[in-house]
Amino acid sequence: MRRIAILAEGAFEWHYGKTATGVIRYGKDTVVAVIDSTKAGMDVPQALGGASFGQGIPVVRDIHEALTYQPDSLLIGIAPMGGALPEAWRWQLLAAIDNGLDITSGLHFFLSEDEELRAAAAKRGVTIWDVRRPPDTTRVAQFLPHRPGSHTVLFVGSDCAVGKMTAALELDIEARKRGLDSAFVATGQTGIVIAGNGLPVDRIISDFVAGMVEQMVLDFTREHDWVFVEGQGALNHPGYSPVTLGLIHGSMPDAMIFCHKAGTSMIEGYTACPFPPLKRMIELNEETVSWVRPDRPCKVAGLSIVTFGLSDEKARDAIKRAEDETGLPATDPLRYGVGVLMDALSRQSASQ
Amino acid sequence: MRRIAILAEGAFEWHYGKTATGVIRYGKDTVVAVIDSTKAGMDVPQALGGASFGQGIPVVRDIHEALTYQPDSLLIGIAPMGGALPEAWRWQLLAAIDNGLDITSGLHFFLSEDEELRAAAAKRGVTIWDVRRPPDTTRVAQFLPHRPGSHTVLFVGSDCAVGKMTAALELDIEARKRGLDSAFVATGQTGIVIAGNGLPVDRIISDFVAGMVEQMVLDFTREHDWVFVEGQGALNHPGYSPVTLGLIHGSMPDAMIFCHKAGTSMIEGYTACPFPPLKRMIELNEETVSWVRPDRPCKVAGLSIVTFGLSDEKARDAIKRAEDETGLPATDPLRYGVGVLMDALSRQSASQ
Repeated sequence: MRRIAILAEGAFEWHYGKTATGVIRYGKDTVVAVIDSTKAGMDVPQALGGASFGQGIPVVRDIHEALTYQPDSLLIGIAPMGGALPEAWRWQLLAAIDNGLDITSGLHFFLSEDEELRAAAAKRGVTIWDVRRPPDTTRVAQFLPHRPGSHTVLFVGSDCAVGKMTAALELDIEARKRGLDSAFVATGQTGIVIAGNGLPVDRIISDFVAGMVEQMVLDFTREHDWVFVEGQGALNHPGYSPVTLGLIHGSMPDAMIFCHKAGTSMIEGYTACPFPPLKRMIELNEETVSWVRPDRPCKVAGLSIVTFGLSDEKARDAIKRAEDETGLPATDPLRYGVGVLMDALSRQSASQ
Repeated sequence: MRRIAILAEGAFEWHYGKTATGVIRYGKDTVVAVIDSTKAGMDVPQALGGASFGQGIPVVRDIHEALTYQPDSLLIGIAPMGGALPEAWRWQLLAAIDNGLDITSGLHFFLSEDEELRAAAAKRGVTIWDVRRPPDTTRVAQFLPHRPGSHTVLFVGSDCAVGKMTAALELDIEARKRGLDSAFVATGQTGIVIAGNGLPVDRIISDFVAGMVEQMVLDFTREHDWVFVEGQGALNHPGYSPVTLGLIHGSMPDAMIFCHKAGTSMIEGYTACPFPPLKRMIELNEETVSWVRPDRPCKVAGLSIVTFGLSDEKARDAIKRAEDETGLPATDPLRYGVGVLMDALSRQSASQ
């Protein structure tokens, strides 16, 4: 187990700091400190304005203060627009390397291709892990069947950032609580940092997305009975839909969970992309499976609804409305658990 | 205009030689010779067992014989499985470079990254153009409207290699014959060699496929009234569907032409991927546009049916059946022209 310091300067909050919060909440490693000078002196729950995790983990001023907590690894814990390394952070990375820390980065820009950082890491004998770097191998999907008895569940949704990774992680935890043999399959940078492995699907060449996902899912279904595959993007997203379809056709799921953020009706960042009705969004995800596998339908078994920021009453209302609209069980995984979703998946698999 | 020799050793026939035949038929440059020692002494139509193009273009033994026809450029005219450079061809490439020829290659493997070839080209001052090399830039789709009055037509289909490029090229020719301002937009290696520009969409990172296609199509629709976008893959293809969806959501077409090969019922190269019914395949392509643009549907206006190898009677039968099944006009572009498709597109655009 590693001892991680997380660099999230100026950005340790829920939205832009989602890699940081994800790793603190779900990671297997110990987080010893979070670097954000704007919140130095608080602990993690204080800095986040309330959180059910990270009690006692200090938020510190800079890498020098973080080093007093003896980390062996520094994680870049934000995903800035554009994906470049903020130049103001460079000295902190160099200081971390000088002190023997390995570096983990989910940035679009590969730190291991930065001359200064690479040279410093080589000299000090530490590693730089760019989690978004795609594998060198290529593979076209072969449409191979999964191990009989395995259950592959893919998380789809109405948009990016609607809780697909969280729902997948929580269902993996829930399944293991129930004594099932379960695994989480990471497909994005935060998930990969949490799991320690995975595939950065948004960086794979389009010809090979489905094939590389298929290979990874086949490997997991050989080893595990329940395989929860983190989703990406949305079929109704004008930019990222190819990533989503590659995940669907590559993972060839037995069931899906549909994720949505309460109160949203439009793709974030676009002015003219209203969501189709909830029921229709569910159908179109199901239909894409039938395009290539008409003899064995894949159904959405339930909904994961993000109700962050709503009162308990309004959250329950939003969930009830989603259930009424779709006829499927719904929950906010972080507020009300994922028991109803695991129940629905188990029922569905028993009836297949 | 260049003078091209095409290297297609052992593969100058319809299927594996489709880059060679495409460039001879549709390219703007002069093809002076085709290299294939197994058919040396024939001309192009003889070597192909009959063809309506390439009369008088000699098929020759090797690069030395080709050089007597004074080419200024050598094109690798085949797409071998795996995409590597057959080692047996290396000396011919080196001889071409030594004699001052530029090299154009559509191989997956980039010739400009081969040390020996790169050094030889640099020394002799010739260029190596790897048409599959994707641009260095990245771009996420912004869902921007096309110039009003422009018509974007995308070619979709039941599988790879069902005549999408040919149908697009023939409609571009037909539109210009009718005095319309028209352009062909290349998205695959053969199309790019023919057009002299384009985007190798199957090599673009999945996050950026739609965005890069959007940029290219926006550029073309600013300049031209009719924009015919070469399609790739199929939505019902288990490996390449993300490429197809990226093309649809990136090009945001006003109309589509559906391409199909008569008599086929299954994705080529897969044992368990039957096509959905023709009518359903058409619908599902149309539906993907509505996912992001529900207020303005995009319809398939007609069908392009490959009837290669069938008697005239059987070809007409196959086309008639497709028309009856779908209620749309159909044709084999190479046998019966694309007039009915251009008529249908014009009617449809007039009624919008």
